[in-house]
Amino acid sequence: MSTLQRLRELLGIVSDLNAAQAVLGWDQETYMPPAGVEARAQQLATLGRLAHERFTSDEVGRLLERLEQEGAAWPPDSDEARLLRVTRRDWQRAVKVPAALVQELAATTARAQQAWRQAREQADFAAFRPHLERVLELLLRKADALGYRDEPYDALLDEYEPGMTAAQIGATFAALRRQLVPLVEAIAEQPAPADEFLRRRFDERAQWRFGEQVIRDFGFDFTRGRQDRSAHPFSTSFSIDDVRITTRVQRDFLPTALFGTLHEAGHALYEQGVDRALERTPLASGASLGVHESQSRLWENLVGRSHAFWRYYYPRLIEVFPEQLGDVSLDAFWAAINRVQRSPIRVEADEVTYNLHVMLRFEIETALVAGRLRVADLPEAWNELTRELLSLTPADDAEGVLQDIHWSLGSIGYFPTYTLGNLISAQLWRRISEDLPDLQEQIGRGEFGALLGWLRDNVHRHGRKFTATELLERITGGGLDAGAWLAYVRDKFGRLYRLG
Amino acid sequence: MSTLQRLRELLGIVSDLNAAQAVLGWDQETYMPPAGVEARAQQLATLGRLAHERFTSDEVGRLLERLEQEGAAWPPDSDEARLLRVTRRDWQRAVKVPAALVQELAATTARAQQAWRQAREQADFAAFRPHLERVLELLLRKADALGYRDEPYDALLDEYEPGMTAAQIGATFAALRRQLVPLVEAIAEQPAPADEFLRRRFDERAQWRFGEQVIRDFGFDFTRGRQDRSAHPFSTSFSIDDVRITTRVQRDFLPTALFGTLHEAGHALYEQGVDRALERTPLASGASLGVHESQSRLWENLVGRSHAFWRYYYPRLIEVFPEQLGDVSLDAFWAAINRVQRSPIRVEADEVTYNLHVMLRFEIETALVAGRLRVADLPEAWNELTRELLSLTPADDAEGVLQDIHWSLGSIGYFPTYTLGNLISAQLWRRISEDLPDLQEQIGRGEFGALLGWLRDNVHRHGRKFTATELLERITGGGLDAGAWLAYVRDKFGRLYRLG
Repeated sequence: MSTLQRLRELLGIVSDLNAAQAVLGWDQETYMPPAGVEARAQQLATLGRLAHERFTSDEVGRLLERLEQEGAAWPPDSDEARLLRVTRRDWQRAVKVPAALVQELAATTARAQQAWRQAREQADFAAFRPHLERVLELLLRKADALGYRDEPYDALLDEYEPGMTAAQIGATFAALRRQLVPLVEAIAEQPAPADEFLRRRFDERAQWRFGEQVIRDFGFDFTRGRQDRSAHPFSTSFSIDDVRITTRVQRDFLPTALFGTLHEAGHALYEQGVDRALERTPLASGASLGVHESQSRLWENLVGRSHAFWRYYYPRLIEVFPEQLGDVSLDAFWAAINRVQRSPIRVEADEVTYNLHVMLRFEIETALVAGRLRVADLPEAWNELTRELLSLTPADDAEGVLQDIHWSLGSIGYFPTYTLGNLISAQLWRRISEDLPDLQEQIGRGEFGALLGWLRDNVHRHGRKFTATELLERITGGGLDAGAWLAYVRDKFGRLYRLG
Repeated sequence: MSTLQRLRELLGIVSDLNAAQAVLGWDQETYMPPAGVEARAQQLATLGRLAHERFTSDEVGRLLERLEQEGAAWPPDSDEARLLRVTRRDWQRAVKVPAALVQELAATTARAQQAWRQAREQADFAAFRPHLERVLELLLRKADALGYRDEPYDALLDEYEPGMTAAQIGATFAALRRQLVPLVEAIAEQPAPADEFLRRRFDERAQWRFGEQVIRDFGFDFTRGRQDRSAHPFSTSFSIDDVRITTRVQRDFLPTALFGTLHEAGHALYEQGVDRALERTPLASGASLGVHESQSRLWENLVGRSHAFWRYYYPRLIEVFPEQLGDVSLDAFWAAINRVQRSPIRVEADEVTYNLHVMLRFEIETALVAGRLRVADLPEAWNELTRELLSLTPADDAEGVLQDIHWSLGSIGYFPTYTLGNLISAQLWRRISEDLPDLQEQIGRGEFGALLGWLRDNVHRHGRKFTATELLERITGGGLDAGAWLAYVRDKFGRLYRLG
């Protein structure tokens, strides 16, 4: 057996263990009976430990070293060269963090998650504070173990967005903020479109069927995936041929299920589109969280909230819900689902204000990690920034600093990837619109084959072969840039809100 | 850490890996999209191999040896002594089978299962044949690796029914057959009760709810389990706190879903009732498949097809289906669901003819394994034996040799345990009826607490601590015996069919 074959075999085992964890995690969120949670935690911990053991084994290290010599002449963009590079990177990260720290983080975040749930219920930040302090302390140790050039935050960010730095993101966000805050203010001065009809009664099964028809039209392959219900929508992948999404349905708020489905389908189309040659290797996934989010945002927003899309689907939606929507025009419906409104809750935010929520979290996270902000002062800082960016004050900490689960999970460095996703989706869209001049007409006919084909060719099939930066360079010739997204929202919302 | 603690830790890891396999298997039968099968086969193979590797490690062998000295004074019925004995037995079996063979079997049967599904749909045995040939070949290699005294079939049987031999079963079956065939013939000469009303239209969701209510009354704990749909009903356990069953629903045949649910609930009540002290050890399951089947048969038949049961539930069933059953008397309904009719399908067979289906499979299996029958000749042999035992010919292979999933799973040696289950259920029932003199009255009031309590105390809580033979000895003072079951069917069906 060649060195490469042996490495692939070991990586295949790790991949299978990770897939098994994903299945158990999916089951936990969708069907598992409540009392199953204790045993499931133990099963997941065992699978996680075995995967870690296998991946960080000395043999993998030796194989990597040998391949770095054997493969010196491999073309740099070949599957082999990229597999080697990405595996080396993952391996380096995995061996640097001591097993004891990994274990402590797992135990601490399990408790923190529980504490967060209760604290949020009672809007009681003080109850969560010691847990978050402990999580932060362990994450700082993890950052130290991983190493970094400029600041510890970079080491954490690198897990979600390889190669990106806090400095880069800070600069992009600052530029974005300068233009976004005035835009939101200008919109706020305009009359808000009516949207009360979105809160009529919509049969849940009819909503479900409509959403599934749309993503089937997108190209989601139901022989290689499925949709189920869960409390919080997510997507997960067990192989290129088994990619699952979940959504939740609210009978009296139409957008929840539909846009949840479109968003998760965007993630799933990415995973279903990875080149089969990359299966059972670390390359069989998305380039980064930012690039992943660019796909979900693209299908949810640039397609799913566009006027062209609804020219095709709105008559079909009215057929499903004639009593609820028969008296609502296409333009009124389109305006309602695009209504911009400053609100305290990120997950309910519209396309325009969403990035303000992310900036707020990024600013707070970087300050925490740099030691410029203490956990104890978090609520005040949060509320202050909310006033600054969104001109409102959360009613309590449940509506403020306690609203997101991420920090309790130890996921610091994750939030900025949401905005990276928005920016990248618009950068891709600009290029797609050049390559497919009649894109809007195609969408207006409910045709997505060319669009999906473009994404498959340029993004999906590569899996994790290229970083976000490399992908952008290949596709746009440039790097991360807020310009395309700003132009897109100025154009769309300028028309919607008749801005000058 | 003590020797025992260390062994328990290692067995816990194996148990977690087995539970993960069970989850992946459950998902494959219930929700997995069709294209997921290849990757799933690989994932199951990897988990199976890792579990096998861990379990058969030298360390486990050394710990067992050391404990056999340290624990020489343990009371023979203690959890510790039994854990040691059962683990030693499993370990001995496991070390004999090479890891490569285990892996090949897992991958081959995962694919065979999918092939069987398609072949059955198209009644196309030829499409399944190469898969079954491969499975059989691997099983023969497995039997050779395990070793046996008389015939290779014993080595396979031993996995499902520890200590039992083909010769023993052959003798019991021959005795049973001598009395059963004339009984079935005598019944066939009597006028058949009407049962066309069972084929009216029964709303599927109403059927589902009714079945779930009955098993909730039995004591099935839905916070520690659930029911889903699958092509072939089964039960599976991921922990004592997560036990799942499946059923299938036919709108125009009432008994399918209901008795499927009661049957699988019988298995599940066993798994939910295992002593918590045995969790994450090899003892946390049923004594043998025969004993397991005694539980499912007991709830399905001795309870669920009894007159007392329907005195309580029939008025409730009429409330759910007034139009379909309002014109059918309790006695007519009871006679219909107990109608004895020679039919080609095992899972639809009545209590009396069911064992003939099992004998048929046992005869075919033993012939296949002994090399007296080729896979290619299977359909013909199947149809010939069906004529002999049941006086009928299957319409096609879907109704004949392709009807069961078992062989595609590599489960040869499994079928006879169904009949062992029937025999044991009647042996237990005889003893329960002595201990609970008003058992029939309790059932007639829809009360199952005392019955479940008896089963928990005498069977469930012990898990795998005792073999079938030991359990029977503890409970009845004797061994396996067809007498109780023959007396039960002669009594019940003698009355139903007014036999002399």
